[in-house]
Amino acid sequence: MRRLPLLLALTCAIASAAAAERETRIADAALATAAKLREAALADDTGWKVTESLTTEVGPRMGGSEGDARAVAWAQAKFRELGFDKVWTEPVTFPKWVRRSERAEVLGAHSQPLYVTALGGSPGGTVEGEVVRFEGLEALQAAPEGSLKGKIAFVDFTMERKRDGADYRIGGGIRGRGPSEAIRKGAIGYVMRSAGTDSHRVPHTGMTRFADGLTPIPSAALSVPDAEQLSRLVALGPTRIRLSLDCGIDGEYTSYNVIGEITGRKKPDEVVLIGGHLDSWDLGTGAIDDAAGIGISMAAAKLVKPLKPARTIRVVAFANEEQGLHGGFAYAKKHAAEIERHVIAAESDFGAGRIYAFDSSAPDYAQNAIRRIAGVLAPLGIELQPGEGGPESDIGPFAAQGMAWASLNHDGTQYFDLHHTADDTLDKIDPKDLAQNVAAYAVFTYLAAEAQGDFGSAPKAEAPPAR
Amino acid sequence: MRRLPLLLALTCAIASAAAAERETRIADAALATAAKLREAALADDTGWKVTESLTTEVGPRMGGSEGDARAVAWAQAKFRELGFDKVWTEPVTFPKWVRRSERAEVLGAHSQPLYVTALGGSPGGTVEGEVVRFEGLEALQAAPEGSLKGKIAFVDFTMERKRDGADYRIGGGIRGRGPSEAIRKGAIGYVMRSAGTDSHRVPHTGMTRFADGLTPIPSAALSVPDAEQLSRLVALGPTRIRLSLDCGIDGEYTSYNVIGEITGRKKPDEVVLIGGHLDSWDLGTGAIDDAAGIGISMAAAKLVKPLKPARTIRVVAFANEEQGLHGGFAYAKKHAAEIERHVIAAESDFGAGRIYAFDSSAPDYAQNAIRRIAGVLAPLGIELQPGEGGPESDIGPFAAQGMAWASLNHDGTQYFDLHHTADDTLDKIDPKDLAQNVAAYAVFTYLAAEAQGDFGSAPKAEAPPAR
Repeated sequence: MRRLPLLLALTCAIASAAAAERETRIADAALATAAKLREAALADDTGWKVTESLTTEVGPRMGGSEGDARAVAWAQAKFRELGFDKVWTEPVTFPKWVRRSERAEVLGAHSQPLYVTALGGSPGGTVEGEVVRFEGLEALQAAPEGSLKGKIAFVDFTMERKRDGADYRIGGGIRGRGPSEAIRKGAIGYVMRSAGTDSHRVPHTGMTRFADGLTPIPSAALSVPDAEQLSRLVALGPTRIRLSLDCGIDGEYTSYNVIGEITGRKKPDEVVLIGGHLDSWDLGTGAIDDAAGIGISMAAAKLVKPLKPARTIRVVAFANEEQGLHGGFAYAKKHAAEIERHVIAAESDFGAGRIYAFDSSAPDYAQNAIRRIAGVLAPLGIELQPGEGGPESDIGPFAAQGMAWASLNHDGTQYFDLHHTADDTLDKIDPKDLAQNVAAYAVFTYLAAEAQGDFGSAPKAEAPPAR
Repeated sequence: MRRLPLLLALTCAIASAAAAERETRIADAALATAAKLREAALADDTGWKVTESLTTEVGPRMGGSEGDARAVAWAQAKFRELGFDKVWTEPVTFPKWVRRSERAEVLGAHSQPLYVTALGGSPGGTVEGEVVRFEGLEALQAAPEGSLKGKIAFVDFTMERKRDGADYRIGGGIRGRGPSEAIRKGAIGYVMRSAGTDSHRVPHTGMTRFADGLTPIPSAALSVPDAEQLSRLVALGPTRIRLSLDCGIDGEYTSYNVIGEITGRKKPDEVVLIGGHLDSWDLGTGAIDDAAGIGISMAAAKLVKPLKPARTIRVVAFANEEQGLHGGFAYAKKHAAEIERHVIAAESDFGAGRIYAFDSSAPDYAQNAIRRIAGVLAPLGIELQPGEGGPESDIGPFAAQGMAWASLNHDGTQYFDLHHTADDTLDKIDPKDLAQNVAAYAVFTYLAAEAQGDFGSAPKAEAPPAR
């Protein structure tokens, strides 16, 4: 055997002792309770009922809409109905974007309608021009300056189905940054193949952002079959289209993060935060995005409540995630002084596919606790996959300031078939998969609340300023 | 062994001799040629190119629309491009129904939009009322007289996917007869779960017919997810909706059956008729319904042409099938005196799924020829299934007067996912399946043209009067 040099050996021994002192622990009794909780959750339909209630009784609930206001009232009532100990709201103010109508059509010899939806943030307006097709954002960026003067840019990137939804980084980038690139080249309008993996006439909306100093242009997504049709037409010869959008910013609106708590038995001031976002896009009823996240987190907390967890369980139904994490930023700003009190957080905002991986930002001294949680998650088909996760959407801003996070990664293979479309409806959720999701969140939440020691939440010196 | 009584034996012998005299025959050489034709067709993409051309360059082509006129011009040009010997048109006049806008929404505490499409033939109008749900047409028929006064009837029948599309008999009946039944009970509006088997926000249109003496009411189909949503809302309590349709009959329009012929080598006056319908609904680009039928029949005839078939091959692109077989009735009326000249006919109007069965109206003396054709179709996975087929759509009126028909039955398992929706687009067709369809039609067409003897076409004494 190789021997360590004496000094290194001594250093290691000291470090180990320090780590041992600080190690975050989970008791065997808690693990046994969590295993029973897991099985009970798999047989429970609270998550389904909550998801069904939100998507049916409220339906679409775009930030700033009448449905947004009804969703806020619904969430408060639902928290109370489920027996949460405290329920309150925190205001979230944002620009109110409205969609009134949208229409596109091919002009000329092959005239025909195209199914489009305005990108969130797009201004209204009617533009007509020849279409110039690009295979991706780089191709658009490489177009000569001024080459799109009077024309309509068409970015036609095809996303592939992947379990972790990796292609959305590309598709989402084309949606977010494409219009600004098109403006820089002189375009008067922008259309893109939907950032989606389906083959239906249901275009995918989603936010775009116009860079400062540019004059926004009407910007829309074509359904996937329409993008293919337009691509065929462009291949036949010069193709002109008309894009008519009636939409845009209409002042400001104040919605609310809606928060429900199960008060901790021993450490009521320490919080395990879970949640989802309450808003949806307007086209569907926001079942996978993100009524499921609301259903999963409300149900998980409700199932944990009878176990009287040591720490407080806080469920946050975030306001207006879709148009820029408005609820997440508002939460991070309001609670900026309470980072350490937020022991760890996890958000469900990637649908209701089966959860297959678990990850966290926990430091070494909490990794044993994370492994013990993973052990109880394993029978659900969930593996510990360090480095594969990240803080989901609304908890991102607070995590960037130092809050510890965990991620329970849903299988997203089908997610981008439905994401941000009219097709995001309740029938797309499998109740058994949703119960598995609830079971995973319940196990994680309960054990994080019972853990002795922390998961590393601490203000970061280099944290970005709160918005 | 049992002996036949002498008289019966003699009678049978005479009948057999008569049948033998009249037996329709197909020569071995023709079978060998047909087998080569089959393999060539499987490797040929004419069917795909024609289907792509019609759906892309013309797109939607509802009877009476600007697309209808472009489709008529397209079909004449395509027949010529493919080398047909004769190309002509025959006028078809029908009421012009137009769709301008359509909208529905749940009112009150659960307000939200519902995705609907007007049924063809529906009048325009805006109605508001409480929804009364029925599980099927019988339940609506059983409702007490006057019980729907001031209300909106909702028939919520669920079609199942079946290879032969059998449930469409029920779903189509609900669409065709439901509105009239609702009017008889006092309803002011009618909505139905789409006659479809998908789960997308793409409602299925299709023709309805108001019975004589009734005042038509706005009538529409909900997408399947919307029907499920409305069903959940109705279960929660009284639910009011508003249905606003702007559509209706706007005078008459004259379109055309477009006909192309490959002139027969020996019997130019005898015709084997194949075809599809040129029109589509307006929501999609009519790929499976029925650009595929046009592509299959044009390609089959084109592939047969170099073989110089004995009889003439006539391809008919029928006008306005969707709104009542207008092209089919016009053809039957115009050619009523030529039934015997139409040796046999087959239409492709059930999508582009693989053909799995073959059937015909051929009398006993032609059954051996039918079996020989079936033998060449067998390697395509097609079985002779007597009694399982019928004359498809537009050839129905002429078949009712006595024209012999054959049917090549497509697998329709997915057909009603797409039928009459915006989702009926080119991407839903598998080029290999389409090539199999073309191969089947080419084999059938060639061998029917080469057969010595007929398939039973003869005027029926009891035929219904031509419309």
